[in-house]
Amino acid sequence: MQLLEDRIRKDGKIREHGSVLKVDSFLNHQIDVDLCNEMGKEFFRLFGGEGITKILTIEASGIGIACIVAQCFGVPVLFAKKSKTKNIDGSVYTSQVHSFTHGTDYEVMVAKEFLSPNDRVLLVDDFLANGAALQGLMDIVHQSGADLVGAGICIEKAFQPGGDLLRQSGLRVESLARIAAMSENGITFC
Amino acid sequence: MQLLEDRIRKDGKIREHGSVLKVDSFLNHQIDVDLCNEMGKEFFRLFGGEGITKILTIEASGIGIACIVAQCFGVPVLFAKKSKTKNIDGSVYTSQVHSFTHGTDYEVMVAKEFLSPNDRVLLVDDFLANGAALQGLMDIVHQSGADLVGAGICIEKAFQPGGDLLRQSGLRVESLARIAAMSENGITFC
Repeated sequence: MQLLEDRIRKDGKIREHGSVLKVDSFLNHQIDVDLCNEMGKEFFRLFGGEGITKILTIEASGIGIACIVAQCFGVPVLFAKKSKTKNIDGSVYTSQVHSFTHGTDYEVMVAKEFLSPNDRVLLVDDFLANGAALQGLMDIVHQSGADLVGAGICIEKAFQPGGDLLRQSGLRVESLARIAAMSENGITFC
Repeated sequence: MQLLEDRIRKDGKIREHGSVLKVDSFLNHQIDVDLCNEMGKEFFRLFGGEGITKILTIEASGIGIACIVAQCFGVPVLFAKKSKTKNIDGSVYTSQVHSFTHGTDYEVMVAKEFLSPNDRVLLVDDFLANGAALQGLMDIVHQSGADLVGAGICIEKAFQPGGDLLRQSGLRVESLARIAAMSENGITFC
């Protein structure tokens, strides 16, 4: 998606010798909601015929983009939570996720009452790199018996293995910007 | 706001002898984006003449509603983060917040580059009870030199002290549903 690639080139900041892309100014600290709306329209163009009933994402930085995408589809968002809080009781689906950013494992969970075999689910997230978070969400969808239609990703680091692994497993993954390589000298898109 | 009060009566679940209101089915686990859009329109009716340049909220459950509100205002969202991650470097505003839900203190932070004395800020959050999170956000706005226009809250537990304390401090707080009392027998709105 040209609009997103242009924005990444303009405002993205590459750190730590090309391993980290910061998009804090428009995607995951400050959020440009107009850009998100354009991304939502593109995801709807790609997945609008699939009878999606629910958008599933993971807290925290996926929530904003997922809500705006959900408006384009006219369906609710469900966001997986990262730890058990007082405000959730009852029965939940859980899955373990390894965070390569933080070097730790964490548990994600979704209340069972919000996913059923009648649902057709689109996963949405801001980034795809190693694919650990998406695998956790896939696991939860499979536990629920819902149909997993695919994943809509804003930015895929295509030089990391997550996207290929997920596609090889049969998941339809649509990434609006796929980065082939990046260094402190710049970014190459696929 | 009648629509929100009706939804709370219909789908809210009161737990722990009237101290906890769960709205997980439409506001902070699953999110009804159409309801959020109606709330965004109401916040725009209340604050639309104030020249707002930025919506500030706090992760995680404020992000969804804030993004949809921000669309109504045509401005970006900024969400305060709860811990320092690899993906933020540089200079940040920070404030300490006490979580009454979890019984712990945590730090919230906003990158300095995204708030300036030229900004006019509306705080948005899903809940107001003790007001600790909002006070942290107010502190950050004051550090930045931006104008703090007010706070738009979905659900205020008006039987807890946060709203009154914030109003007494001079903050304009607009809550779309204000709960006077709740118990396992039901809810009374102000």
